[in-house]
Amino acid sequence: MPLINIKITNDGVTKEQKQQLIEGATQLMVDVLNKNPATTMVIIDEVDTDNWGIGTRQVTDLRKESGS
Amino acid sequence: MPLINIKITNDGVTKEQKQQLIEGATQLMVDVLNKNPATTMVIIDEVDTDNWGIGTRQVTDLRKESGS
Amino acid sequence: MPLINIKITNDGVTKEQKQQLIEGATQLMVDVLNKNPATTMVIIDEVDTDNWGIGTRQVTDLRKESGS
Amino acid sequence: MPLINIKITNDGVTKEQKQQLIEGATQLMVDVLNKNPATTMVIIDEVDTDNWGIGTRQVTDLRKESGS
Amino acid sequence: MPLINIKITNDGVTKEQKQQLIEGATQLMVDVLNKNPATTMVIIDEVDTDNWGIGTRQVTDLRKESGS
Amino acid sequence: MPLINIKITNDGVTKEQKQQLIEGATQLMVDVLNKNPATTMVIIDEVDTDNWGIGTRQVTDLRKESGS
Repeated sequence: MPLINIKITNDGVTKEQKQQLIEGATQLMVDVLNKNPATTMVIIDEVDTDNWGIGTRQVTDLRKESGS
Repeated sequence: MPLINIKITNDGVTKEQKQQLIEGATQLMVDVLNKNPATTMVIIDEVDTDNWGIGTRQVTDLRKESGS
Repeated sequence: MPLINIKITNDGVTKEQKQQLIEGATQLMVDVLNKNPATTMVIIDEVDTDNWGIGTRQVTDLRKESGS
Repeated sequence: MPLINIKITNDGVTKEQKQQLIEGATQLMVDVLNKNPATTMVIIDEVDTDNWGIGTRQVTDLRKESGS
Repeated sequence: MPLINIKITNDGVTKEQKQQLIEGATQLMVDVLNKNPATTMVIIDEVDTDNWGIGTRQVTDLRKESGS
Repeated sequence: MPLINIKITNDGVTKEQKQQLIEGATQLMVDVLNKNPATTMVIIDEVDTDNWGIGTRQVTDLRKESGS
């Protein structure tokens, strides 16, 4: 029954990577809490880098400056 | 003042269906809790089927297999 | 698979009322979107009235003033 | 470490306005709670006006009627 | 109509500080986006330091080590 | 920068288990998406079983019936 919500920036995450996130997060619930994987839900939110800020700065701008 | 957040897969839900969800969720707060409908908010999030997993699987793949 | 999150103030909502909210929200997904009730989840968050504001005011204070 | 989530309707909010929201929300944590701005995160969600309801009505329709 | 959710650790934040957070977050919506304060909602979640992690560590332990 | 929110029922999850959830969720972001663990946040919400429903039923009642 656990519910995991993963928020990441929208950087071209592939369908395969999303599948890995879903599997890994579900397995974590099994390993640590002995939860039933069949009823574990994972929802991934992809957030535009203009819409995410840390340390008062937009991620868009932080990345430009760091060249990454 | 209640706030209802509905998360569903993005399957071509129509504007009319969304209106029905908003009305129904608001009425539920009135019927069960005697809340004021005027200040009840409903927010609907439509999630890509690649981004939603249950039972370790992406909904995209579960639907392919079930033919639905 | 829908997920409904209901946020309400913590005003002594009973177990029976919560059951009614869960049933009603699930039925709404069935009626409007033809969703499977077996995999529909509802999570209710009860929020302290000091922690909820509307119109710049805490609900705690709004209620004192209105006498309700 | 605070985390602020701002949900607004998707009305052409500019990158500059989003930057102002991020700065303002972060500064609020510093001013009121003496939090460290470097680890304060802000995430902005822009919601379609069909997907947001208040008083049983979609914001899309409320705006049409009010002419705004 | 904006909705602001503030998540902070549960460190004895006072009712007055919560009122300041509600006022400040609402005013930010007015100043930056010209929103109506009367329908702006703010919800504050206080999270136990055992339940919040950053950099793989619980905030409870990070604070012990830093002596803060 | 990823943010992971884990919602589970409040069943006496220990501080050590929470630490394992935080580490595991953070490591998943490193392994799959090459994210920086230092800025990855995890927040765990523990939900009362009266407040969580699946298949129209409260988890409290589902557990009584299953004897688990």
